Amino acid sequence: MKNNWKINTSNPITYSISQIENMFDVDNTGLIDYIGDLKQKKLLVIDVNVATHYFTRITQYFEANNIPYQSVLLDGGECNKSVENLFILLEKMENFGLNRRDISLIGIGGGVVLDLVGLAASMYRRGIPYLRIPTTLLGIVDVSVAAKTGINYMTRRNRLGSYYPPIASLLDTTFLPTLKPIEISSGLGEIIKIGVIADLDLFNILYNFGDILYNNNFNHHTSHEVIHRAISVMKNQLEHNLWETDLKRSMDFGHSFSPIIEMRSLETDDVPSLSHGHAVAIDILFSCCLSYKRGYLTKEDLDKVYETSKKLGLPTDHPMFYDINILWESLSDTVKHRNGNQNLPIPNGLGSHIFLNDVTFDEVITIINIFKDINEK
Amino acid sequence: MKNNWKINTSNPITYSISQIENMFDVDNTGLIDYIGDLKQKKLLVIDVNVATHYFTRITQYFEANNIPYQSVLLDGGECNKSVENLFILLEKMENFGLNRRDISLIGIGGGVVLDLVGLAASMYRRGIPYLRIPTTLLGIVDVSVAAKTGINYMTRRNRLGSYYPPIASLLDTTFLPTLKPIEISSGLGEIIKIGVIADLDLFNILYNFGDILYNNNFNHHTSHEVIHRAISVMKNQLEHNLWETDLKRSMDFGHSFSPIIEMRSLETDDVPSLSHGHAVAIDILFSCCLSYKRGYLTKEDLDKVYETSKKLGLPTDHPMFYDINILWESLSDTVKHRNGNQNLPIPNGLGSHIFLNDVTFDEVITIINIFKDINEK
Repeated sequence: MKNNWKINTSNPITYSISQIENMFDVDNTGLIDYIGDLKQKKLLVIDVNVATHYFTRITQYFEANNIPYQSVLLDGGECNKSVENLFILLEKMENFGLNRRDISLIGIGGGVVLDLVGLAASMYRRGIPYLRIPTTLLGIVDVSVAAKTGINYMTRRNRLGSYYPPIASLLDTTFLPTLKPIEISSGLGEIIKIGVIADLDLFNILYNFGDILYNNNFNHHTSHEVIHRAISVMKNQLEHNLWETDLKRSMDFGHSFSPIIEMRSLETDDVPSLSHGHAVAIDILFSCCLSYKRGYLTKEDLDKVYETSKKLGLPTDHPMFYDINILWESLSDTVKHRNGNQNLPIPNGLGSHIFLNDVTFDEVITIINIFKDINEK
Repeated sequence: MKNNWKINTSNPITYSISQIENMFDVDNTGLIDYIGDLKQKKLLVIDVNVATHYFTRITQYFEANNIPYQSVLLDGGECNKSVENLFILLEKMENFGLNRRDISLIGIGGGVVLDLVGLAASMYRRGIPYLRIPTTLLGIVDVSVAAKTGINYMTRRNRLGSYYPPIASLLDTTFLPTLKPIEISSGLGEIIKIGVIADLDLFNILYNFGDILYNNNFNHHTSHEVIHRAISVMKNQLEHNLWETDLKRSMDFGHSFSPIIEMRSLETDDVPSLSHGHAVAIDILFSCCLSYKRGYLTKEDLDKVYETSKKLGLPTDHPMFYDINILWESLSDTVKHRNGNQNLPIPNGLGSHIFLNDVTFDEVITIINIFKDINEK
């Protein structure tokens, strides 16, 4: 009778990602299929920015369909992805009195609000179901697919969080017309990432029509295909690595040098603040310079990435990307997150990739110079 | 090209529960097998009560084996299972600089400290590995097996938490001699639960030797078997329901009326405070009265449960268990946690069980009277 046991089990996970255009037209039943018991009161957690334009439209939908609801407004914006806001939300949830398994919690907003709702859902009663309705382009193509939730903590991006997918992510591009240009380009930053690293056809759409997609708030005959390609690639990458067991992740492209720079840019008054998608986009271009230096990308392709970034309204540099110390500090923290390895995804020709593990301090200095040349030409 | 996807995946979970007696004898290599890279610094989160008796012993182990470490002390005690302490710990972890996948975090203590460490581990970088070394009897037979982590929030027990098992739970009964009698009986409260609801042989050991186990701080020739039986039953119950997908859980026995009473007893000055195991033990006796009233338990068996509780140093009543309003409030909150169903596990003969879903307010009043009679005889 040895007191020695091994627990072997497995947690099956299923969730949907579904585009439902004009979701809040009162006679659209798309949402109702996902919402569970219609007599159970719903807790709508709505991004303040979304509420400004769509609060009446959203609440009228619930009223017209006789679905009881209560709404909570939360500020978007990276600085609101905080411990404080997490607990403001949890207190609202406790006072609302959520049942443990009913689908009552619905997050409607950008990445910040959805990340907060997801983390709160994962912690409350050790996990309750929730729905994600992303209303930004970045939310639609990025947050919707992944299982990640998170808040910033002690000046580190997403230092606290969980892997906790929703029951479903429901996509509706009719929220996009009211987005500011910076929000459109931020979403395009995550989309160009997928094109450059894993889908040449997607990259070519952006190269050919990027300016129209950007200027028309993503309203274009290619937008359905862009969403389709971006999510399909990401799904294929994530589905068998949802908990990031494998720390070689192509979707980390653009997220190697940028995380600390993004956070630092928000804290420092004398440099421009970077949105997430913008920080990623600059990292993409910087990493492409590395790829070019190593001979994995032609000068012509590097230039195409630069031009496409411009078309998409993306910044192509930032003072902090010329600072070797901050770049190296950021890469070092990334290495910690990848458990001691660089695992740096870079394009191996457009639409394909390899991982590097031997980038040195001196090489990063060389890359800064290539990056400078591109930006000064 | 429909924009409609379904993610289907699965998270495999494996962890060990292993008894390693005299774990911190400097030449015992048991712990070393679980600790990962010995050159990586370890963060030891030690219960203050444990540190009082064993700090030198524990740190000497790491020093003698040349394993670098840093220690953090945390207060045990239910009132310390708080948001505040969670963030004190997270700040220490961030400053320590944990890698994402190395086994660096080791919790050593009772249920409160292990629950805090587990929740912090699950949130930090969206989850890092950790080891649990329970030092109380309740920790050894209960916390060690389950995947649960948690803190109390807004006067609700474990309202926030996660399912996040450690890499391993390592058990060492040589911590038990310094426990206070109330800590021994609290552990015995969770053990009698398993005996009454699922293992007649275990119950009979407690019935026959309970007073010796209690009086000798669990030092007895049956203690190995008691641990073996308690953990084996719990493992079998949990392994295929680790995320509590099925809300009919025999291990919820004793946790139906007690959760709110336990918390309330800590807040109210004019009634005795209840430890977790004690609150569970009174609920067990109360639920056995219900079982007896329904004809599922003989009077003789009910009396045996009462006598065994006495032998184990457990309280057999509490003022709040005579208060129909608080009992009903507690049951109603439990029903929310079981998503609208009572799913009340009660013994169907000793060592076996059924679930009830039709207990009424009036029936609980009747049970109070049976419970009173037992306690007054």
